[in-house]
Amino acid sequence: MEVEVKFRVDFEETRRKIESLGALFVREELQEDVYFSLSLPKLLRVRKLDNLGKAFLTYKEIKDPGRNEEFDEFEVEVSDFDTTVEILKRLGFGKDIVVRKRRLVYRLGDVTFELNDVEGLGGFLDIEVISDDVEEAKKKIWKVAGLLGLSKDDVEPRLYRELMRDSS
Amino acid sequence: MEVEVKFRVDFEETRRKIESLGALFVREELQEDVYFSLSLPKLLRVRKLDNLGKAFLTYKEIKDPGRNEEFDEFEVEVSDFDTTVEILKRLGFGKDIVVRKRRLVYRLGDVTFELNDVEGLGGFLDIEVISDDVEEAKKKIWKVAGLLGLSKDDVEPRLYRELMRDSS
Repeated sequence: MEVEVKFRVDFEETRRKIESLGALFVREELQEDVYFSLSLPKLLRVRKLDNLGKAFLTYKEIKDPGRNEEFDEFEVEVSDFDTTVEILKRLGFGKDIVVRKRRLVYRLGDVTFELNDVEGLGGFLDIEVISDDVEEAKKKIWKVAGLLGLSKDDVEPRLYRELMRDSS
Repeated sequence: MEVEVKFRVDFEETRRKIESLGALFVREELQEDVYFSLSLPKLLRVRKLDNLGKAFLTYKEIKDPGRNEEFDEFEVEVSDFDTTVEILKRLGFGKDIVVRKRRLVYRLGDVTFELNDVEGLGGFLDIEVISDDVEEAKKKIWKVAGLLGLSKDDVEPRLYRELMRDSS
């Protein structure tokens, strides 16, 4: 299970704080996400990493709808972004929302930081732990969130897909 | 457009004939195809190439239903067979038919020979040309079919999916 909490942050300030924690920089991603119209709690997405020449097909089921911190995730790398989008369209899935972001990925132990600058929405930090022990995962997430000076007030429970729709 | 004609053949005899034409051997594939329940003329398939460690997601639309010689095809390589099957199941597509075959691929100019030994069904030869000029493609196909001693009587219009269902 993918457990993650999303915070609204200032991108540059949070970047400095993450680096001062000693987190390992993993990679930068320039992402273009196409979401298809599927009813929540199901999510269907094709992601293009423009700077890395990669693409992924991802299906998620939200296990705690509304809160959106717990996900069953199934993902495969695909050899071509446009063809994958075309296959899904022909299978009857409507292209819904496009989300573009610049992401910096850091790792500290088994905690992953995904620091995002989302086009039209601003800075967000996803703190993620892959674990089937949700309570333990959340403890780890909140421990490092505290070290970054983040609190419950900074949490953004809405999905990027929802934020993008709400802002348009 | 993918244009192909399928013939019932004797595997070993046809292999010798193809090689004696001077066709180039391209590769051997041990295929496991999972077809999902989708109404014709649409086909949805995940293919595993056991011997090559590869997998593909393929969507086809049959342009001449019943005859089954003309296809619009969209295909991507995927990083994991089982995960791709799981994503499609969770999207609501039922696992329908599994087809296993050993395939030898040969090429002669722009004609591709796919010589198949299909588990439970026997030998088949698909002669394929990728072209948007269907008439020209069929001329090329029938020219080499003639050289192999194949005639209209040897044509099998049914899809492997249908043959597998009819035989079970």
